[in-house]
Amino acid sequence: MRKSAFQHRIHALRTKLSDIRPDTAWIIQPENRQYLSGFSAEDSQLNESSGSLFINDKACLLVTDSRYSAEAQKEAPDFEIITAKRGLLDALPTVMEFLETQCLGFEEDHLTWGLHQQVRRTLRKLDQPPRLTPLKGVVEELRVIKDTAEIKAMEASSDLMSRILAEVIPSLAPGRTEKEIAWQIEGLAMEGGADGLAFPSIVASGPNSALPHAVPTDRKIRAREPIILDVGVRIKGYRCDMTRTVFLERPGPKFRKIYRTVREAQLAALPEVRPGVKSNIPDKKARDLISDAGFGEYFGHALGHGVGLATHEVPRLGPEKPVKLEKGMVVTVEPGIYIPGKGGVRLEEMVVIEKNGPRILTRNPHFYEF
Amino acid sequence: MRKSAFQHRIHALRTKLSDIRPDTAWIIQPENRQYLSGFSAEDSQLNESSGSLFINDKACLLVTDSRYSAEAQKEAPDFEIITAKRGLLDALPTVMEFLETQCLGFEEDHLTWGLHQQVRRTLRKLDQPPRLTPLKGVVEELRVIKDTAEIKAMEASSDLMSRILAEVIPSLAPGRTEKEIAWQIEGLAMEGGADGLAFPSIVASGPNSALPHAVPTDRKIRAREPIILDVGVRIKGYRCDMTRTVFLERPGPKFRKIYRTVREAQLAALPEVRPGVKSNIPDKKARDLISDAGFGEYFGHALGHGVGLATHEVPRLGPEKPVKLEKGMVVTVEPGIYIPGKGGVRLEEMVVIEKNGPRILTRNPHFYEF
Repeated sequence: MRKSAFQHRIHALRTKLSDIRPDTAWIIQPENRQYLSGFSAEDSQLNESSGSLFINDKACLLVTDSRYSAEAQKEAPDFEIITAKRGLLDALPTVMEFLETQCLGFEEDHLTWGLHQQVRRTLRKLDQPPRLTPLKGVVEELRVIKDTAEIKAMEASSDLMSRILAEVIPSLAPGRTEKEIAWQIEGLAMEGGADGLAFPSIVASGPNSALPHAVPTDRKIRAREPIILDVGVRIKGYRCDMTRTVFLERPGPKFRKIYRTVREAQLAALPEVRPGVKSNIPDKKARDLISDAGFGEYFGHALGHGVGLATHEVPRLGPEKPVKLEKGMVVTVEPGIYIPGKGGVRLEEMVVIEKNGPRILTRNPHFYEF
Repeated sequence: MRKSAFQHRIHALRTKLSDIRPDTAWIIQPENRQYLSGFSAEDSQLNESSGSLFINDKACLLVTDSRYSAEAQKEAPDFEIITAKRGLLDALPTVMEFLETQCLGFEEDHLTWGLHQQVRRTLRKLDQPPRLTPLKGVVEELRVIKDTAEIKAMEASSDLMSRILAEVIPSLAPGRTEKEIAWQIEGLAMEGGADGLAFPSIVASGPNSALPHAVPTDRKIRAREPIILDVGVRIKGYRCDMTRTVFLERPGPKFRKIYRTVREAQLAALPEVRPGVKSNIPDKKARDLISDAGFGEYFGHALGHGVGLATHEVPRLGPEKPVKLEKGMVVTVEPGIYIPGKGGVRLEEMVVIEKNGPRILTRNPHFYEF
């Protein structure tokens, strides 16, 4: 029988576990959980987990409660589903004894300090209490290289998002509000069969476009100002993230220059997004070009980031802590120039890194050849 | 000059701090942050904080980054805004020295183990390193009693949600899908001026209604089956949470009995939701009635929970860990009976506890007098 994608991922995790201290991985972070098991439930609040995976060389358990056990059975056939009636802490000793865990690895960037304390106290009651050790991003490192099924899902979310923008952009007209446009995008995402948005859409016009983090307002869009659409949808959990900046009419020389500079920075960075290159190099290409054009101080964020089950994941394409880019990574390339109080331009492609370089998944045209 | 609601809350926190070990409260949990400062930004991911409050008897600081500083200035006038260019950990030593912090209280149920470690390492470099101590739910305890402005916001979100259901319920017809109905609700919420939904709407028909946690599907609703609508919107951050169970035609005797039992359980519990009563009493009233009717094993969850800036907050109205109910609490009263594979009925009111008992904020009628 062919191994499922999940079995491959579990195998990769087990191989990693054999090199590090913990013998059992405890997975509660929702995207890590979905990556390893297929179980797609979200946590409604940080203190309301829908389930935990426990994986070691003996077994794969998914501990959940009665609200989720039917869904877990269906979605995670590689896991044994345990329905913990009185919650995780109550079930934990039995689970640890069954797995013969000596050292339990936890997700240090998701587990709260409070729950860590409670677990530590619970484990102490056992005859041979397992130790607790951080997993140090082990699953996040596995997630960084996307497999065929993952790339296919991201092609699907990018294609849908591209189709939506191809419908929305021609419909833009002076007088429509940012909120209306954001709502139109969400409606088309739902009609188009998305699980939902990847993140709340950014529709930012005029001075609002100078805020990289802008929330859609009741402001009416105008003819000669930048309108940033930074948008994405989710399909089978996998996200798309793309940005276009639109002008309804030809803007003045300043914004023409800004747009041209951002686009040139993006085109300079893209060829460097290929296997073997350090992740700071594409950022430097774009940043140098923007600085040379006199806008260096107005490009405040990193060039890009990994995308997958989460909108923001490793690797980061920024000046600091470079890592080597590899085949199968999916990243954004999104230079921007933001003039406070005036407006900004950001252009973002999401690309999959292939043997010879980046393949762009977000295929809408850029509109302006000023 | 009159004190703002935020100044009152800061004063209450300072009073609490004078009784416990930490002299400075470090607040990162988004609802706690909004409660104390008005700063309403959300965190896009757990590892992407939009800001931290630091409050002691000397000062109120809001440490954020350039993406959020304009918003922070506007929303949090009682706080001094610090824009930390290189992130929180970089700014922390200066902040601690400025505040002369000796013991820093952190939110143990929100701070991750990993960030706690990083902060500990950062603080150790100081000449006089402050200690780190959990705040033990101090802000959550303040939030449990709602002030006038908060109750007003929750009246607004409840009124909007009631109007939406009054429009949606008569529009239900066999053949419409759960997803379509959920989407209709979201559209009306946006049109009605909500910030957004309080949580993803539950629209669960037929056998799906037996799952207390159901996600809307493409299933078409039918005439004589239960359709659970568990819905809520947010206005100024404050949430509404309400549930109606609808039948398009008179159901058979079994579901008539179930509906009647749930409604009677709710009516039995409601008068006990008043100041001075222990929080397990209303649950017991409802649970006993449901058990006496023979459905005890089909009511698996607690009777209710607090609502406010979060959908689920203290107090919990369940059999365990009773607390005394007080004037100004806002809680749900939501008994349910769920027959696996067949269907369920849940009826949920959100009430504010007043001197003489509960005032129901969710005023839609219940439709069935079988």
